[in-house]
This record gives sequence, C-alpha cells and structure tokens, in this order.
Amino acid sequence: MKLLRYGPAGQEKPGLLDAEGRIRDLSGHLPDLGPEALSPEALARLAAIDTGSLPVVDGEPRLGTPVANVGKFIAIGLNFADHAAESNLPVPKEPIVFTKAISSLSGPNDAVMLPKDSVKSDWEVELGIVIGRRASYVEESQALDYVAGYCLVNDVSEREYQIERGGTWDKGKGCDTFGPVGPWLVTSDEVGDPQSLDMWLDLNGRRMQTGNTRTMIFTCAQIVAYVSRFMTLMPGDIITTGTPPGVGMGMKPEPVFLKAGDVMTLGIEKLGEQRQDVTAWQRREG
Amino acid sequence: MKLLRYGPAGQEKPGLLDAEGRIRDLSGHLPDLGPEALSPEALARLAAIDTGSLPVVDGEPRLGTPVANVGKFIAIGLNFADHAAESNLPVPKEPIVFTKAISSLSGPNDAVMLPKDSVKSDWEVELGIVIGRRASYVEESQALDYVAGYCLVNDVSEREYQIERGGTWDKGKGCDTFGPVGPWLVTSDEVGDPQSLDMWLDLNGRRMQTGNTRTMIFTCAQIVAYVSRFMTLMPGDIITTGTPPGVGMGMKPEPVFLKAGDVMTLGIEKLGEQRQDVTAWQRREG
Repeated sequence: MKLLRYGPAGQEKPGLLDAEGRIRDLSGHLPDLGPEALSPEALARLAAIDTGSLPVVDGEPRLGTPVANVGKFIAIGLNFADHAAESNLPVPKEPIVFTKAISSLSGPNDAVMLPKDSVKSDWEVELGIVIGRRASYVEESQALDYVAGYCLVNDVSEREYQIERGGTWDKGKGCDTFGPVGPWLVTSDEVGDPQSLDMWLDLNGRRMQTGNTRTMIFTCAQIVAYVSRFMTLMPGDIITTGTPPGVGMGMKPEPVFLKAGDVMTLGIEKLGEQRQDVTAWQRREG
Repeated sequence: MKLLRYGPAGQEKPGLLDAEGRIRDLSGHLPDLGPEALSPEALARLAAIDTGSLPVVDGEPRLGTPVANVGKFIAIGLNFADHAAESNLPVPKEPIVFTKAISSLSGPNDAVMLPKDSVKSDWEVELGIVIGRRASYVEESQALDYVAGYCLVNDVSEREYQIERGGTWDKGKGCDTFGPVGPWLVTSDEVGDPQSLDMWLDLNGRRMQTGNTRTMIFTCAQIVAYVSRFMTLMPGDIITTGTPPGVGMGMKPEPVFLKAGDVMTLGIEKLGEQRQDVTAWQRREG
C-alpha cells in the first residue's frame, strides 16, 4: 500500500494511492495515519479494505507528511562511502546518529525556507524507515519486522549550523521545513528489499545526486537494530538513513548552496518523488 | 503554581500541589497537562481556580513527567564553566545543542535503568525550561515571555555512548529512563529569576554536585532566544540547560559511574526534589 495524508497543513486526512494513481479517502476507516495505524495488525486491516469502495479525492490536493504524530525523527550520517569521501570525513565504524527536530517535518512538496541568515543550506535525498512496532534491543535478523514501511526524505541541512557553530549536528538539521517526507509511506511488502533502490536529486533540473541504497554502509536492518540499543523506537518514529554523493557541500571546484528561487526535485525507486521550491524565510503560524 | 501529573505510567491525571503540599486533582478542569494547557491564557484560567474546591488526592501516588505530549526534549551542553573544566573541554563560544529522545522521559522518582551493556552511566542535575508559546527567532529580551515555567531534570548520560561511539552526543543521552523530569512544573511567576537557584545532587547520600544557576554561561533567556533561531520551539517542548560540576566522569582520582543499587537524590531551589533507584536493564512494555 501507498499510504498518504492529504489536505491543508494541520488538517490532513488519511488516504491511499490506488493502482491507477488516484487518491482514495480513508477517513471513514481511521481518524489519521498516526502511530496506532502502523502496527502489522492495523496495516492488515487497511489492506483488507476494498480499495474500490473508498471515495476518490478530486483534484491534486497538497500532501502532508504521510505519518501523523511522529515522536522521533532520527537520522544516520555519512552512510554512503562516497558521500563520506566528498565530505572529507572517514567512513564511520558505527552508525552516526543525530536528531532532526520534529518541527522540521513538512509535506513532500511544501516550500523549503532558508533560515534567516543561512548561507550554506544543502540537500540530501534519503531513504526513510517508518517504525511500526516498539523496538528495543532487536536483533538485526528480526529488525525489518519492526518496520511498517519506507518513505522518501529530503534531509535538508544547513552546513554552517551543522559543522561550524559548535556542538552537535542537530543545530543544522532541524530548521523549520528541513524535513520534507513523502509523498507516501510505502508498506514493506510493496517495497521488498530496501537495499536495491535507485535514488536521485536534481537542482533546477540538473542532476546532482545519483545513488542506490545497495551502497549504504549500514543496511536498514543494521540501523534499526543499532539504534534500538540506544533508545526504544516507537511506532511512527522515522529514521532517515543517509545520503549518496552529490550534495552541495561537496561540489567542485566550489560548494553550491541553496538560494531562494531554486527548485529541488528528488525521488527513490518505488517511493515516489518530491518537488520543493526554495524560499526566503517567512514567519509561519500554527 | 506547581503543576504535576500523578498516577500509573501512561495513565497520569493532571493535578497541582496546594499551599499545604497536598496534591489536588485538576481532571475536572482539563484532560491533561499537555501543550495546550501551557499558554499564558490557559495558565491564567488554571490560576483562577479556587484551589480549595479541587479534590484532595489521598496517599502518595507516583508522579509522572509534569508535561504530557512533549514534542522536543532539547539539551544544552557544557553550560557551567566549572563543568566544562572537569570534562577537559573548552568553554563553548555558543550554546552546545543536543537532543534527548522523548522516549527517555520518565517520572521524577521512577527507577533509572542502566542500558544492557552500560559501564559509564552518569548523573547531571539540571534546570529545565518548559516552553509555553510557539517561539521562532525571539529576542533575548522577550525570550522568557515564551516560558511557561521550570522543572528539575536529571540529564542521565552514558559517557561511552555519548563520547566514544562516534557521531553526536545524542547516542548517550536518550536511553529509556534517562530523562526524569519533575516533580512539578513550577510556573514562571512563582520561580521569579531563574538565574539564582541553588542545585545539588547526592549519590547514595553523598553530595556530588553543588551549584547555582547564576554560574550558567548562557542564561535561560539567551538559550531560548538562541535555540529559536535553529528550530521553532513549541508549547510543551523542554530545554534542559546544563549541569554544574560534580558529575561522575569528572571524579578524581578515578571517574565514578552508576551501578545497580545506587540511589540518586537531587533538587533545585523552588523546583522540588527527585529520587531514583538505579537498576539493571529490564524489558518494559507499553
């Protein structure tokens, strides 16, 4: 299944994408796609619904983050050997774990706002893992049983805040709109092997990142098992798993950073595509 | 006001502490002490209630984290000059920001579990700031207007995970039960100046940490203003503001770390006290 949330920000309704690519409304079956909707049992109930019986949603509504009430938004750093090289950093011996603020979550096609004084904002196409069951000290061999599905994430990053301002990377990873997720949560059964998915990102129509999840240093199963030793993963938690080469910071002869008016488009095989307009910072309410 | 949540984990009810130190039940007035209860208007409504009209809660119930549905649990590192010195780290030029996983939150007197293979778990008495209003790019001079109140936090830390496993500090800060908060959320009006509060922590009855918030390098107002430039702070977010000297890692001639059977007691002037039994790891459900 391709599960999604559609509608204005803060008022999203649950839905799914049918075989013809139309949005079908699920709000007659559940109030929202929150943590409680992601257990194997809850997903089985959704899968048993006759898709043809669900109302078709007209038009092209805005899409929100496909999971509501995300508790933790965890990220893995330098998880592609080539990306570590372009960042002039050694390949990590263990997964690098950092945190994106949940207030950075946004819809897959919402604008990305540059922070007020940002001069080094950058892109990162990534595979996101959505947790479906509480996971604490799980074995690698069992780890994918705790995964509800996968989604596309743009791990937008402000490199000055991340690297040059002292402290941890968290400072440059959690700015508002720095976490576009979606368009869909694609359930594990439909994705199959998460370690063989092509991924790409274009800036203003020019290909910047090309990769495949098979070159991840730590696999999804290893990451879920590893992180579950340091914190209990809860349904609805998202772990984004690192980016392939081609970020702006690594461009030669000079780094390239985002500016207002830029357009990012990105995608992962089976998981859909995103498109974000880059804008100057503006105050948001709500 | 001293606001609190009492009852079994996951089933807490809202309450307050009256002038005689008795718990009074607030569940006739609001469903829980979540983010929506922390705005200046909502707090004014609570303050207008005749305390004598509220049911007295008998006995000594367990206390939970005094805020429900915390979105972000942000922490500031090395914010006391003496603690930076004992950690052999330079005084930071800007606040060091890291994240504690919200799954680490626990009640003020709940047991602290050592992670399965932990050999370097440590204590940190800290002043916690609870955000009451959405805060984005707020000025230092206005920053405390966005604070609902303050609470006592034990920023329990696994030093090997934090420092020796690669990546950010987050790995050693967010283990289950590593975030005791409470007993109360004490509203700003009752705390007055947050920069003149005595703080202390005992391990097995022996004084380990002694400090006062006046020696913080960055004040609460500076911290709220600073963090609000990197992420929007939302009602219910907690920022814990760093610890004074006396953590186990800094003990001479040898560091001292937590072991099962230890007891931590800690307190901050006006904010109450906590007591935690340290236990071996055990699987928790729910």
